[in-house]
Amino acid sequence: MFSTTSNKISFAGLLTGVGDLLEADRGETVYHPGAPSNCVYLVESGRVKLAYLDESGKKLTLTIVDAGEIFGEMCLVGEKSRRHLATAIEPTVVRCIDKPEFLRVLGNSPEGLQILVEHFAARMREYEESLEDLAFRDIQARLSRQLLKLSDEYGEETKDGILIGLAVTHKELADMIGSARENTTLALNRFAREGILEKSRYRIIIKNEDGLRRKFTAL
Amino acid sequence: MFSTTSNKISFAGLLTGVGDLLEADRGETVYHPGAPSNCVYLVESGRVKLAYLDESGKKLTLTIVDAGEIFGEMCLVGEKSRRHLATAIEPTVVRCIDKPEFLRVLGNSPEGLQILVEHFAARMREYEESLEDLAFRDIQARLSRQLLKLSDEYGEETKDGILIGLAVTHKELADMIGSARENTTLALNRFAREGILEKSRYRIIIKNEDGLRRKFTAL
Repeated sequence: MFSTTSNKISFAGLLTGVGDLLEADRGETVYHPGAPSNCVYLVESGRVKLAYLDESGKKLTLTIVDAGEIFGEMCLVGEKSRRHLATAIEPTVVRCIDKPEFLRVLGNSPEGLQILVEHFAARMREYEESLEDLAFRDIQARLSRQLLKLSDEYGEETKDGILIGLAVTHKELADMIGSARENTTLALNRFAREGILEKSRYRIIIKNEDGLRRKFTAL
Repeated sequence: MFSTTSNKISFAGLLTGVGDLLEADRGETVYHPGAPSNCVYLVESGRVKLAYLDESGKKLTLTIVDAGEIFGEMCLVGEKSRRHLATAIEPTVVRCIDKPEFLRVLGNSPEGLQILVEHFAARMREYEESLEDLAFRDIQARLSRQLLKLSDEYGEETKDGILIGLAVTHKELADMIGSARENTTLALNRFAREGILEKSRYRIIIKNEDGLRRKFTAL
């Protein structure tokens, strides 16, 4: 029970065939802040980004939800309207599962509830780390932690280094670390100059993972 | 099921008499970062502050745990050593409940697991709000949100206004909003000058709650 330390908790096996399928193209919104909060989404395929928008339109990416994971789960604990913007970042298929249906399937079985506990715990740990970064670390350190995380979750070994298998723009990376696009590009350029990575607009290859790790742990 | 929207989830009824009692004076440490993570704590009476310490000793308060609530629960999902500093901020009694014992009592009953889900969800929501604050809001806005939260949770109506019934120093407030002590004092002084609050070293009385709310919502 509760044996995992992964931060990607899969509900796929538990929710097979439940709910209604919806498709979203890359860049398409699944829900906006303020929309009624009455179903849980399971990512069937593709990926969804959850972001907080402040009043002036600035964006902070909270997490990326992969196939098998759920999002929109705060409706289970009393949330009436969405607080975040959910956007497909790849061609994506989600299942929209009404709250009563979700609870019928998962809410009374110890196994289902254990997975739900693991899901919330994983998200909480992810947020803790983001909080620590935002409070204490400069942009280079935040960027290096984010790149290490992306490399861990989406990295593909190639002859040139570890290719991050998720297309991210500089603006998207900036939203992930709570920074401005310009400063993120400056830090990426610096990492590239130092031979830590190679980059193009959507593609990042990590050439020197230890060097990246040192950026993160340096005081 | 999952009906609460509170951010204080009580386990008191479910864990009565379980585990070993430990006492801690105000300021005493319950655990340090790096200590083995093998039990869940229930606050029997008093209050415990959870904080993250960075390498240079700077501190970010993540949450305050009240009587009835649990902390140290990440041992349930694979954490091997503590990541935070847990300190009693009042004379406090906690129950230390071994992981197997905690799971025996709560881990197989839908009711227990539901409470655990609510607990994690509440903590996750609290962290989301802190993230949004740290990413987007200035010190005055962060301080006003924190004071509104303390007023909501610990406020006592008096003839002079709402007394925050939790003794906090300026340094402690600064750690709660991820700011330096000096800047927090400046913002408190400004709020006092504007008639929003009255303060002494450990005591804050909110005189104008609407004024405080406007500080938070102002762009």
